[in-house]
Amino acid sequence: MNHFGKLFAVTIFGESHGESVGVVIDGCPAGMPLSVEDFIEDTERRKGGKQKGTTPRQEEDLPLFKSGLFNGKTTGAPLTLLFENKNTRSGDYEKQRAVPRPGHADFVAHEKYGGHEDYRGGGHFSGRLTLCLVAAGVVAKKMIAPLKVVATITEIGGEMDIETGLQKAITEKDSVGGIVECRVSGLPVGLGEPFFDSMESLLAHAVFAIPAVKGIEFGSGFGAAKMFGLQHNDAIENMKGQTRTNHAGGIVGGISNGNELVFRIAIKPTSSTPKEQNTLNWETGELETFSVKGRHDLCIALRVPPVLEGVTAMVLADLLMREQKIKRIFST
Amino acid sequence: MNHFGKLFAVTIFGESHGESVGVVIDGCPAGMPLSVEDFIEDTERRKGGKQKGTTPRQEEDLPLFKSGLFNGKTTGAPLTLLFENKNTRSGDYEKQRAVPRPGHADFVAHEKYGGHEDYRGGGHFSGRLTLCLVAAGVVAKKMIAPLKVVATITEIGGEMDIETGLQKAITEKDSVGGIVECRVSGLPVGLGEPFFDSMESLLAHAVFAIPAVKGIEFGSGFGAAKMFGLQHNDAIENMKGQTRTNHAGGIVGGISNGNELVFRIAIKPTSSTPKEQNTLNWETGELETFSVKGRHDLCIALRVPPVLEGVTAMVLADLLMREQKIKRIFST
Amino acid sequence: MNHFGKLFAVTIFGESHGESVGVVIDGCPAGMPLSVEDFIEDTERRKGGKQKGTTPRQEEDLPLFKSGLFNGKTTGAPLTLLFENKNTRSGDYEKQRAVPRPGHADFVAHEKYGGHEDYRGGGHFSGRLTLCLVAAGVVAKKMIAPLKVVATITEIGGEMDIETGLQKAITEKDSVGGIVECRVSGLPVGLGEPFFDSMESLLAHAVFAIPAVKGIEFGSGFGAAKMFGLQHNDAIENMKGQTRTNHAGGIVGGISNGNELVFRIAIKPTSSTPKEQNTLNWETGELETFSVKGRHDLCIALRVPPVLEGVTAMVLADLLMREQKIKRIFST
Amino acid sequence: MNHFGKLFAVTIFGESHGESVGVVIDGCPAGMPLSVEDFIEDTERRKGGKQKGTTPRQEEDLPLFKSGLFNGKTTGAPLTLLFENKNTRSGDYEKQRAVPRPGHADFVAHEKYGGHEDYRGGGHFSGRLTLCLVAAGVVAKKMIAPLKVVATITEIGGEMDIETGLQKAITEKDSVGGIVECRVSGLPVGLGEPFFDSMESLLAHAVFAIPAVKGIEFGSGFGAAKMFGLQHNDAIENMKGQTRTNHAGGIVGGISNGNELVFRIAIKPTSSTPKEQNTLNWETGELETFSVKGRHDLCIALRVPPVLEGVTAMVLADLLMREQKIKRIFST
Repeated sequence: MNHFGKLFAVTIFGESHGESVGVVIDGCPAGMPLSVEDFIEDTERRKGGKQKGTTPRQEEDLPLFKSGLFNGKTTGAPLTLLFENKNTRSGDYEKQRAVPRPGHADFVAHEKYGGHEDYRGGGHFSGRLTLCLVAAGVVAKKMIAPLKVVATITEIGGEMDIETGLQKAITEKDSVGGIVECRVSGLPVGLGEPFFDSMESLLAHAVFAIPAVKGIEFGSGFGAAKMFGLQHNDAIENMKGQTRTNHAGGIVGGISNGNELVFRIAIKPTSSTPKEQNTLNWETGELETFSVKGRHDLCIALRVPPVLEGVTAMVLADLLMREQKIKRIFST
Repeated sequence: MNHFGKLFAVTIFGESHGESVGVVIDGCPAGMPLSVEDFIEDTERRKGGKQKGTTPRQEEDLPLFKSGLFNGKTTGAPLTLLFENKNTRSGDYEKQRAVPRPGHADFVAHEKYGGHEDYRGGGHFSGRLTLCLVAAGVVAKKMIAPLKVVATITEIGGEMDIETGLQKAITEKDSVGGIVECRVSGLPVGLGEPFFDSMESLLAHAVFAIPAVKGIEFGSGFGAAKMFGLQHNDAIENMKGQTRTNHAGGIVGGISNGNELVFRIAIKPTSSTPKEQNTLNWETGELETFSVKGRHDLCIALRVPPVLEGVTAMVLADLLMREQKIKRIFST
Repeated sequence: MNHFGKLFAVTIFGESHGESVGVVIDGCPAGMPLSVEDFIEDTERRKGGKQKGTTPRQEEDLPLFKSGLFNGKTTGAPLTLLFENKNTRSGDYEKQRAVPRPGHADFVAHEKYGGHEDYRGGGHFSGRLTLCLVAAGVVAKKMIAPLKVVATITEIGGEMDIETGLQKAITEKDSVGGIVECRVSGLPVGLGEPFFDSMESLLAHAVFAIPAVKGIEFGSGFGAAKMFGLQHNDAIENMKGQTRTNHAGGIVGGISNGNELVFRIAIKPTSSTPKEQNTLNWETGELETFSVKGRHDLCIALRVPPVLEGVTAMVLADLLMREQKIKRIFST
Repeated sequence: MNHFGKLFAVTIFGESHGESVGVVIDGCPAGMPLSVEDFIEDTERRKGGKQKGTTPRQEEDLPLFKSGLFNGKTTGAPLTLLFENKNTRSGDYEKQRAVPRPGHADFVAHEKYGGHEDYRGGGHFSGRLTLCLVAAGVVAKKMIAPLKVVATITEIGGEMDIETGLQKAITEKDSVGGIVECRVSGLPVGLGEPFFDSMESLLAHAVFAIPAVKGIEFGSGFGAAKMFGLQHNDAIENMKGQTRTNHAGGIVGGISNGNELVFRIAIKPTSSTPKEQNTLNWETGELETFSVKGRHDLCIALRVPPVLEGVTAMVLADLLMREQKIKRIFST
C-alpha cells in the first residue's frame, strides 16, 4: 500500500502520465512555516537536468498546496501537495504496449492488475512518484532541523570518479548504475525500537520504496561480513557513546548510538537503455527486439540523493516524534 | 515495537535471562496441523551446536503451546508459543554491568531505557529472540508449502569455503562474519504492493529485525551498481514472465515477477570475540580493557539460515494472504 | 490520524475554507468502472438541499479524479478524488475568531494546534470533510455490490415523523438532533475478527469519524440492557444461521452471523443554532453572547445517511477483502 | 486481529479451556514498578464473586510475568502476562457441541474457522479473555496516574437500583443486561486526532472488543438526538475550556475538551440463561430445546467495570503518549 509511518505518516499517489502525482503528509507539527520556495532546491536536485546523463523533462515540479497550510504555516491537519503532470505524450506508449520493457514493471503490473494498470510511462510505478518522496522529505527535513541529512553519489558505473563513470555510459551508449551514501550527524542516542522498528528496518523499508534500489548496507555493511570481531567492534570512548571507528554506521541493536548514521544504497542501471534489447511481444507471443524511444536518463542514480534524503528524513521525523524529541506544536 | 505483519502478524517478547521468550502468531489459517515435532529441525539448525564456531548452550528450545492449538490443529485464534529459559546464570552479568560490551546493545539500551533494561545477556536485544522468529517461520513455512524457502551460508570470514573461514577465526582467536543467501522458487507473479509494501521493503524490514544483519541485496544487488543496463536487464522469454538471467532477484518494481526470489544478507562478526577489547567503564568514566567471559559463537552467521528463512516465510505468508493465494481455512 | 483501513484504506484531507477537500483510496480492485456520474446521487443526498432544515451551500461537489483512474476504470493504484472549495467567504470567520463557537471544535483545535489551525468554518474539523467519506463510500459500495447498504433517518428532534421533528426546530428557531439507522442484508457469515477487529469495533471506529455522532448501538442496543436473556437471544433456525428475531443486529461475538446488519447512531443537534448563546471571548477573557451568522442546517442528521452508508461500506469492503470475498481484480 | 494500539500496544491471546490466556503489552515506559499485588484489586473486581448474580469460578487469576519485568520494574521491552487456566472441565462441552448456544459465538466461530475452533466454553471468544484487558488496564492505569478511570454500573435489568435489578433476574430465573458508565476527570485538552483517531473512535473501537457490549454513547449520547441545539451546546466559561453542563461528555470534534470524559455502554443479558431455549442441532438439522449446564452469571454487566476501565486506560495511555504527556522513561 502507499502509506507509511506511524506518527509522521505519508500517503503517495499518482501516475507518470496521469493528471498528477502527490502526497498527503499527516502528523506534521502545527505552526511550521512552509512555502513553495522550500521545495525548489530538492525538486531541482531531483531533476538532475544540468548533469550529463539525465533526461531533460523540464516540468516545473513545484507543489500546489491543496490542504494543511494556512497563513504560510502548517496547521497540524494533513498537508496535501499536488504536482500536475504536463508535457506528457502518451501516444508512444500505446504503440509499445504489446512489449513489456525489460527491467520495468510493465509485465508484473499487467499480471497483478489484469491489464487495467495505467501503462503509460510506467504508470504508478514511474520514477515520477519519487517527486512525492522528495516533497515529503522537504517537510520532514524542516521538522528535524538542525539535524541535516546528506546524501551523495559515491560511485557511478563502478567508478569513484563520477564523471568517468558517466563517460563510460556515454561511450558505451548504455545506462549505468551507481551507489549513493547517506549520512546524518547529531542524532540522539535511542532512536529505533526492537525488534521490528529497528532503525535499519524502518530505513530499509522506506528506502526500498525508491524504484531501482537493489541493496542497502549500514556502516561497513557487506564489508563487515569479511571482518574479524575485534576489527569491527567500535569501542566506546566516552559517556556520550562516541566511538573512534564507525563500522556500525551509528546503529547498534537497531538503535541509534549517538555516532554518525551512515548507510549506502545500490542503484541498478536505468532500465531504459539506448541499446537494442530482446523481449517478448505479448500479442504475438514471439520474441522480438526492442528499442526505447525518446531520451532517458543514462544513470538514474544521479537523481537519487534528494529522494534518499527525503525518505531518510521521513523515518527520522517519525522516530524523533516517538521519542518526544519533536514537539507537536512548532515554535520557530 | 515488537509487532509485524498485516494479515499474518507476529508479536515477539522475552529476554535472554528472563523467564522466557515467545511469540504470538495471529492470522494463521484454521485447521493447520501443528506439533512440537514441526519445530525440531529448524530450532536445531538455529543452535548450530554441532558445528565448529557455535556455542554449546543446549537448551531444548522446543515450544510450549500456550494458545491457539486444539486437537493438534490451529484454531484460527492467536497461536502462542513459549520457550522457557533454563540454565541461565546471571551472576556474570551483574559484575560486568559497568562495562558496555563493544558491538552489543548495552550502551544504547541503557540510554534508551534509563538503566531499567534487563541487561543480563543482552536482555530483550539478545539473539535468543531469534528463536521466536524461527518458530513463527516454522508456522509460516507450513502455510506457504509447497513453496520452499531455502537459506544457505555462502561466505564465512570472507571465504567461500566455510570450513576455511571458520578455521581463520579459530586460528586468529577472533570472531568472523558471513553472508547468507535466501532463495524461493515458484512464487506467483504479483506479490508486493507499491510503494511502501514492495517485496523488497517488507523483506528488508523483517530481515533487519535479525540481530547482526548489516546489509541486504536483491539479485545482483550491489553488483548491479557496476553493471550496464543491457547487462542487468533480464529479458522476458515467455508468457509466464520467465527470464534466462535473474539479476533482478525475482523482483521488478517491487513485485514478484515469477522467477526465483534471490537475496543475500551480510552478518557482522559476533560482537563477543575472545580477543581483549577496549571499552569504557561507566562507573569510573575511565577506559579499560575487557574480555568476554564464557564461550560464545565465533560466527553468529552459522545460526542465521533458519532465522532468515523464518522471517522470509512470514513476509511471504502475509503477501500470499493479501493476494488470496492462501485460504483462511486450511485444508490438508 | 486521517488514515483508516487495512486492505481498503482511506486517507482524507482538506478544510472547509481551504482550497479543497479530498480522499486517497488505496486497495480498490483494478478494473472497476468509475465515473463522475457514480458520485452524483450520494453527493446530492449529502447536500440535503431540497429538504427543510438544510443549508443551501450549493457547490457542485463532484470529484476531480487526480489519480488511479484510466480509461474509465480503476487501475489498482491509489484513487485520488479532489473536491474544490468554491463560494467560500472567510471574512466572517476572521471577526468571529475571538469567540469559540459552542459545540464546535474551535476551542480544542486552538489548544491542540497552538492557534495555527485553519479556523475558518471549522477548518479540518468541518462537516465538509464528510464529502470525502461519501466519496470513499461510493467506491466501496460499488466494490461490495450486490450487497446494499441503506441508511435512513428514523427520528428527528425526538419525533418518528420527520416532518414533525423539523417543524419543531423551525417553530422553536433552534436546531435539533436525530437518529439514523443503517441496514445491510445478505452479508456472509464470518466477517470480523476477534478481539480488536470485531465488526462492532471497526464500524464504531469509522462511524465516530463522522462529526456530531454521539452514540452507536447494534441490534437492540441500549434496549438490550433492559431485556432478559431468553428475550434477547436470537434462536438459530436453520443451517444458514438465520434467526427469526434479530436482537443481535446481525453480529454475535463480533462476527457477522448471516442475518441483517442493523445499527443506529445518535446525531447531536447542529452546533450552529440560530439562538443566541453564551460563550467566552478569548481576547477579552469575558463571557459574552454570540449569534451564528449566515444560514446553517437546522438538523445535520438530514445529511448523514449517505455518510453513514459510506463509512459502513468502507468497513465492509475491507472485511470482505480480508475474507477473500472480493477479488483483487474486478470483473464485471 | 488481536492487536490494538499505536504507541501503547496490546496483543491478547488464549481460550477459555485452553492452557492459558494472556497479553503482551508493548510500549510501556521503562522503570515503572509493577508487581502481582497491583493486579489483585481489578482481577478480583472482575470476578464479581461476592455479588449476587455472578458465577463462582474461583481461579486465582493472578498473572505470571513472562517477560518485560526486571527487579520489580518494567524494562521498556514487551511485558507479557500469562494467566493459567485451572479447574476447566471440558467434557460438558464435547456433548453439547452439536448445539450452537443462542447468543454465543458458537455458530459464527464454527462457520468462520471451518469447525477447527476451540469450542470449549466459547474458546477464544470467551469472556475469560477480558482478564487480559483488565491486566493491560492495570498497567495503563498506572501509566496515566494520577488520572483516574472510574467505571460504575448505573443500571441492571432496567433498574437504577442494582439490587432490585438482580432480584428481578433471580425471581425470573433468567439473565439480565445492564449499563456501565465510565468517567475520567482531569484529562488535558487536545487528546484525539481527526478524523479516524478521534477519542470516540478509539474508545468505541476498544470498548466493542469487550464481549456483550451492544452500544456506546458519549455525554448525552442518544439523549442528544432529542435535544435542541441551545440545550445541548456546552458554553465555555473560562480560558481552560470548562463548561457548566457536559452534554458533550468531554469530547468536541473528537478531541478532549478539558471537561470530564463521560460515556456509557450497554451490556446485553448473559447469553447463558438458566431458561430452556430453542436452538438448532447441527448434526440432526432439527430444532430442539436446550438448557445451559452449570452455573453462569445472571448478569455479566457486574463484571464489566474493571474491564471497561482497562480498555479506557489503554486508549488514554496511547493518546497521552502521542501528545507527549507520558514520558518514555518512568520516574517515580
